[in-house]
Amino acid sequence: MKKSKVTICLLTDFGLKDGYVAAMKGVIFSIAPYVTIVDISHDIDPFCISSGAYVLNSVVSYFPPSTIFVAVVDPGVGTVRKGLVIKSQEKIFIGPDNGIFSWILTDKAAQVFWIDADGVSSAYINPRVSSTFHGRDIFSPIAAHIAAGINVEKLALPFTGYPVVADWVMPRESKTSIEGKVIHIDRFGNIVTNITKDFFLGWMERHFKEKPKDKAPTVEIKSLKIPVAKTYASVPEGTFLALWGSSDNLEISVNRGNAAKTMSVSYLEPVRIFMA
Amino acid sequence: MKKSKVTICLLTDFGLKDGYVAAMKGVIFSIAPYVTIVDISHDIDPFCISSGAYVLNSVVSYFPPSTIFVAVVDPGVGTVRKGLVIKSQEKIFIGPDNGIFSWILTDKAAQVFWIDADGVSSAYINPRVSSTFHGRDIFSPIAAHIAAGINVEKLALPFTGYPVVADWVMPRESKTSIEGKVIHIDRFGNIVTNITKDFFLGWMERHFKEKPKDKAPTVEIKSLKIPVAKTYASVPEGTFLALWGSSDNLEISVNRGNAAKTMSVSYLEPVRIFMA
Amino acid sequence: MKKSKVTICLLTDFGLKDGYVAAMKGVIFSIAPYVTIVDISHDIDPFCISSGAYVLNSVVSYFPPSTIFVAVVDPGVGTVRKGLVIKSQEKIFIGPDNGIFSWILTDKAAQVFWIDADGVSSAYINPRVSSTFHGRDIFSPIAAHIAAGINVEKLALPFTGYPVVADWVMPRESKTSIEGKVIHIDRFGNIVTNITKDFFLGWMERHFKEKPKDKAPTVEIKSLKIPVAKTYASVPEGTFLALWGSSDNLEISVNRGNAAKTMSVSYLEPVRIFMA
Repeated sequence: MKKSKVTICLLTDFGLKDGYVAAMKGVIFSIAPYVTIVDISHDIDPFCISSGAYVLNSVVSYFPPSTIFVAVVDPGVGTVRKGLVIKSQEKIFIGPDNGIFSWILTDKAAQVFWIDADGVSSAYINPRVSSTFHGRDIFSPIAAHIAAGINVEKLALPFTGYPVVADWVMPRESKTSIEGKVIHIDRFGNIVTNITKDFFLGWMERHFKEKPKDKAPTVEIKSLKIPVAKTYASVPEGTFLALWGSSDNLEISVNRGNAAKTMSVSYLEPVRIFMA
Repeated sequence: MKKSKVTICLLTDFGLKDGYVAAMKGVIFSIAPYVTIVDISHDIDPFCISSGAYVLNSVVSYFPPSTIFVAVVDPGVGTVRKGLVIKSQEKIFIGPDNGIFSWILTDKAAQVFWIDADGVSSAYINPRVSSTFHGRDIFSPIAAHIAAGINVEKLALPFTGYPVVADWVMPRESKTSIEGKVIHIDRFGNIVTNITKDFFLGWMERHFKEKPKDKAPTVEIKSLKIPVAKTYASVPEGTFLALWGSSDNLEISVNRGNAAKTMSVSYLEPVRIFMA
Repeated sequence: MKKSKVTICLLTDFGLKDGYVAAMKGVIFSIAPYVTIVDISHDIDPFCISSGAYVLNSVVSYFPPSTIFVAVVDPGVGTVRKGLVIKSQEKIFIGPDNGIFSWILTDKAAQVFWIDADGVSSAYINPRVSSTFHGRDIFSPIAAHIAAGINVEKLALPFTGYPVVADWVMPRESKTSIEGKVIHIDRFGNIVTNITKDFFLGWMERHFKEKPKDKAPTVEIKSLKIPVAKTYASVPEGTFLALWGSSDNLEISVNRGNAAKTMSVSYLEPVRIFMA
């Protein structure tokens, strides 16, 4: 009975044009017919690990305990990078060791395992492993076997090294500003940065005894200075604004427009916020 | 047992690139783990309320009774527009009061409620409501609580005003023609209008004692005159045709081509049909 | 109880912008509420039957027995082409007779039936059939009734003619090379051909007593000669390579780039592989 409630969430950059995601689902249903599969996104910008990591992190807290997340944005597939299984906050995360779990790994209590395809894990992956499709042949069957009740400790080995945590996981601060990066561009062209409202409020506390009079938070990106607003509708159509988005990350937008195209921004573009 | 059969259908313009839709699903599964979630579409053209309303209306009758529909195309999120819960034809509809339920509200027996986020509804929405994401924080938890058995009357208030019904909900007729509008452009570039076959047949009955001899229904859009055909294949490849589409709305197409791009049409473009 | 495990897989070129796929799902859930529906792909390039056939074939073996596949890439909808129900390898396939089941039909033991909409099948399809949307009105209800336990023999007739098997189902060989075709272009722009590794190895055995010394398999497409590599990462970024893809078909790619756009290739473009 309990098994019927296990949810496996999938996040990839495979798109939905091909059968890649469906093959993963077929593998999962063949091992664990009663799971519910939820697509988080399969339209992560190809090879953009920060974007996959951000989208994953933006949804994790909304899912119930026991949810299993398979995240595959994997430009290094077929090279020596390891495959990971992470236990954190009563949830399980499966995917390549390339930074996609950067925010998940900020949980100091996270337990990290790696998939030993030639050893203990071999009974829980596809008999034949394609060099280009570990999502189907390794990560999906591992997820399904965990959903079916196999302990993580049985199908993977403790990871003794340092899993990859990318440098864009946190912004940097100075007395005068916070320096962050563009980590995601959403469907509407909203530009999402790694500067969160919590980080900004902490910075304010650390550096200002009281809120500076006559000054307001201001964002700078590609030499443009943009004020922080409360809603899209609080500026005229076609105008840039910055706001704390639905995940509490600082976002740069154009009201009813496409900010990323308007300023032709790239992933990892520097962004600054300061009082002015 | 009965609960396992409740279906929640989601329609948004959020796209599937980001985690927006997945966050809604996580919220729903956390409250009502046994529901089935069906995606109607998340690629409604951004902010195009007529398109969302049309796509919603085109599928409603195919779903079984008790189905719950959450529809979020919401350019006014964060402003004063209300959130609605509508009971109609044994189904339930949840979303903003901005015209997206224009066709649903043509049911004179529909019961309309509004979501009082600071009052009776507050126990059934997320504790913290983002100003940009009511789909996740208000509409999804309301849908999940209804799926879990809470009465609509308990989590929303009767709406005493007039919910928004857009002017594109019905075409206008004269003795010589019917004047309609483009309300949707589909994936193939087919141009869908608000003129239905039923409306056309009624107009014929009202204005012609007998079917006009030697005349056939003709469509005019952007100064082009296009005859009504029976199937795509009945005209040569690359040629414009008009036909009664799979939802019985008048559509303008190009056989094996993209009509919307070929004539660069916009939403709410005027269309006319007459006998010639 | 057994019924709760039946999976219906959907593959179309309808896209996910419109309500077409959701209407199919509503029809299915109205007849068979307990099935699990899996989307294989709805972004098959419009009208590209070889692409739909390839994507279908690439996932079939990963799904459990009893799975039902509905495949609708159907440029001839509304003409005289028949609708098919095929039983093969304990799975069931439903869709138009236009080549989309070319690979499924290479199973000599496959049993082929056709849907007699005006006869025995009429009780198992929608009462009113749109001339443009057999996916909703014919193929989906047939699939749902089979999932609900109706025998194929009861709702369709044995097909006594020859179902369409397209000429791109197999490459052709000579002493000096194998001549194949482009059958699919994936989301990343990888160009997929109908030449499989098995076919290539068989050709090597048939024509060479021993592996030719100092020669390696070489691919020619649009006058470009491209060597066969082992992984994307084995060539520099931006460089063409050929490799045996995750379905064992020969693919032409650009490492971290889009091969189809770079060489502007079309469906059914000729491809050759030889030793050089």
